[in-house]
Amino acid sequence: MNIIKTLISTAILSLAAQAQASNVILIIGDGMDDQQITAARNYLHGAQGQTILSTLPVRSAVQVLTVDENNPQQVVYVADSANSATALASGGITSRGRIGTSAKDNVDFKTIIEMAQQANLKTGLVSTASITDATPAAFIAHVNNRGCQSPKHMVNFQSNGDRIIDCASDTKQQGGEGSIAEQLADSQVDVLLGGGLKYFKRDSEAGDMTLLAQSQKNGFEFIDSLNQASSVDKNKKLLGLFAKGHLPVRMQGTDGRIAEKSSYSFLHFFHRYLGTVTHPETMKCESNPEFIKQKTPDLKDLTQVALQRLNNEKGFFLMVESASIDKQSHTRNPCGSIGEAQQLFETVQVALDFAKQQGDTLVMITADHGQAAQIVPNGSMFDVYGVPVASPGFTARIETPEGGVLSINYATNDFSYEEHTGVNVPFFANQQVKNAQGEDMITALIKQPDVFEISKTFLGL
Amino acid sequence: MNIIKTLISTAILSLAAQAQASNVILIIGDGMDDQQITAARNYLHGAQGQTILSTLPVRSAVQVLTVDENNPQQVVYVADSANSATALASGGITSRGRIGTSAKDNVDFKTIIEMAQQANLKTGLVSTASITDATPAAFIAHVNNRGCQSPKHMVNFQSNGDRIIDCASDTKQQGGEGSIAEQLADSQVDVLLGGGLKYFKRDSEAGDMTLLAQSQKNGFEFIDSLNQASSVDKNKKLLGLFAKGHLPVRMQGTDGRIAEKSSYSFLHFFHRYLGTVTHPETMKCESNPEFIKQKTPDLKDLTQVALQRLNNEKGFFLMVESASIDKQSHTRNPCGSIGEAQQLFETVQVALDFAKQQGDTLVMITADHGQAAQIVPNGSMFDVYGVPVASPGFTARIETPEGGVLSINYATNDFSYEEHTGVNVPFFANQQVKNAQGEDMITALIKQPDVFEISKTFLGL
Repeated sequence: MNIIKTLISTAILSLAAQAQASNVILIIGDGMDDQQITAARNYLHGAQGQTILSTLPVRSAVQVLTVDENNPQQVVYVADSANSATALASGGITSRGRIGTSAKDNVDFKTIIEMAQQANLKTGLVSTASITDATPAAFIAHVNNRGCQSPKHMVNFQSNGDRIIDCASDTKQQGGEGSIAEQLADSQVDVLLGGGLKYFKRDSEAGDMTLLAQSQKNGFEFIDSLNQASSVDKNKKLLGLFAKGHLPVRMQGTDGRIAEKSSYSFLHFFHRYLGTVTHPETMKCESNPEFIKQKTPDLKDLTQVALQRLNNEKGFFLMVESASIDKQSHTRNPCGSIGEAQQLFETVQVALDFAKQQGDTLVMITADHGQAAQIVPNGSMFDVYGVPVASPGFTARIETPEGGVLSINYATNDFSYEEHTGVNVPFFANQQVKNAQGEDMITALIKQPDVFEISKTFLGL
Repeated sequence: MNIIKTLISTAILSLAAQAQASNVILIIGDGMDDQQITAARNYLHGAQGQTILSTLPVRSAVQVLTVDENNPQQVVYVADSANSATALASGGITSRGRIGTSAKDNVDFKTIIEMAQQANLKTGLVSTASITDATPAAFIAHVNNRGCQSPKHMVNFQSNGDRIIDCASDTKQQGGEGSIAEQLADSQVDVLLGGGLKYFKRDSEAGDMTLLAQSQKNGFEFIDSLNQASSVDKNKKLLGLFAKGHLPVRMQGTDGRIAEKSSYSFLHFFHRYLGTVTHPETMKCESNPEFIKQKTPDLKDLTQVALQRLNNEKGFFLMVESASIDKQSHTRNPCGSIGEAQQLFETVQVALDFAKQQGDTLVMITADHGQAAQIVPNGSMFDVYGVPVASPGFTARIETPEGGVLSINYATNDFSYEEHTGVNVPFFANQQVKNAQGEDMITALIKQPDVFEISKTFLGL
């Protein structure tokens, strides 16, 4: 009988402890502004339909804040994922390209994950990008530039579209914490799931082993297939890398088609009222063969595994990113973005189910910055006049399942890769959070550093 | 003593009645999507600043719904102000260009103003556009097309950018209610304030008098200067028209400059990596001389006058529109849009002050559809490579008071007038509204017809 009593009281104590554990799940749709949400809604659920985001009781918008690298007093109106994730992760407002460090003077910001770890909470990062990419990196790493992803990217490396910053001062040799991949390998994060295997196959800065070996030395169990996760001891740290770089995206346009330019007939070059215009043919969204071929895990399944492992009596902080809403918008592939928004919606369902079952779990969903895509009329308002009018950018005309044509335009630049925009981004939560004064922390408009403050408050850090 | 008693009890009764009166103030920023709000915030209050919208306790977003004229089962993903205002005013989802009528079969939708009038509530429409323009029109008029603004626009009239629809069936001769201006002149709306005098100077369809005379015959007192309002008996209907067409806007770019094209050097036409690019010079925002010259009343003052006249013991419905956020975006004038967003913010303050003082007043702020403007980086991310990159559209680079450069891009088409976008639009309210089942009506995402339902519920109609 005594044994049974002890068992029961232990179970009760454990339940009580579990009930007290506060958890935060922060889900970031990279580049998921309201245009992206609306486009995905229209395609996946119809214009009259609702995404799971609409079911959430709390909605706000978030101001994205950026400063100039050389003059941090100077505001910049468009962010990149590095500085915006830094603000979400640590409350620090910095310059584009920076990971967890301040503009100009390069001071490290303490992140929510570091604080959670100090309080013995569990932590996790999940992304469809390389796990070394800007958004997950900013939650744990501190480095001059997002491009400094592995030891070979530390000095005079010029990454795609970033300012060229020398990360020499971040090398271990110079007393720094090393590249982003090294900082992840050396970290105490309990769950790291995403892409980026190629960075971990490289040698460490010391050159004595690969970063994968270094991470294993630090206690990480490595998997490259999600079904291996169940056989890894729950008390071990888990590093799951499921692609060389970013995970392939779920959807693409017909035969891989992306947005294209409209073309004018010869006469149009004499006068803009003359000639005719030919718009891109309509397309459908289809499965991306690469996603299937590489047996890419769904973001919702990565999240499910992370939640199973993080759930503990003391609470946890988990960041989950659907990264390629942004990446596919950069490359003008609206079906790609729609598929990755779908992945995010599914993940929100997993998080809400967990919160419902477990209690005391704050689920927040936001974007880090705006993106180029705009839903434009399928046919200009000037068509009725017989004048040839088109967007000067790239347009994709997608046949939706409900029989409409969703026309999406990209025109932030005329190069091979679109730019971000500076719009406020959406924010959703499954509950309100009050500060010490009992005031609502989630008001009609918050700033990115407020997301960090809300997380801290909810976790009692 | 008896007289004093009677007076006191009358005063108490009147106060009690006043306390029971429910009022709705619906403030529409035409085209005021999140890009517009963010741009105005950045310019007027700084990137770290807050507009009055941020102080409101309830935030949502609104799905904009449109259908095809010939096949109303077919969804269309981008609205115009006519069909979207129709949905806000009456809950009816219709096709672009239509005012208070259904697509294809042309059935009249009953509007919130008609319902309010039937319940003996007072009603008002205030706009910085011509009062016959699509947004105010849709709250009272029923006509085939927004272009049918006066008797001379009824048959075979081709308005700017609309489908060409013959309003012959709406003529009084054929048993219709006549043009929009006629329907306004014949209406029982208590307060009509805006522009559009030219339409009222035209002859009525019968040809026996001007529409202004017709409105006066119907009981309207006419003013063309706002300070005349105080001398008009509060029980009379008020028609105030302060410009021939739309009211001039408050702000413009330096010397009237709007967004301009970037230009490439000759070499660039051989290869896109070659040559140089010259972006438009930066500009400032300044007062629009026309606004001052025409002694244009501020929207907040129009609203103040409307509120004074509408406030009564039975309640009222008032729609206020800042119309030219949209119109200035069509013509690529970001300073124009910012000034009109500022007018909206000031008007929200007036409405909130009234609600605070009066009680039982629902203040809602939303947009009718998205617009073309996007905040883009001031300088492409590819500038570091020395590659000449620019938006293929039109860009304005605005020097902000806080010392930044706010770069705004327009690229929905390459013609003289930009197109709308299909994004969800923001929504703010000063309070939550519950339905008969006690459920929140303002959830994270609502549809445009819900705004009509919320108004109806709050007014008990």
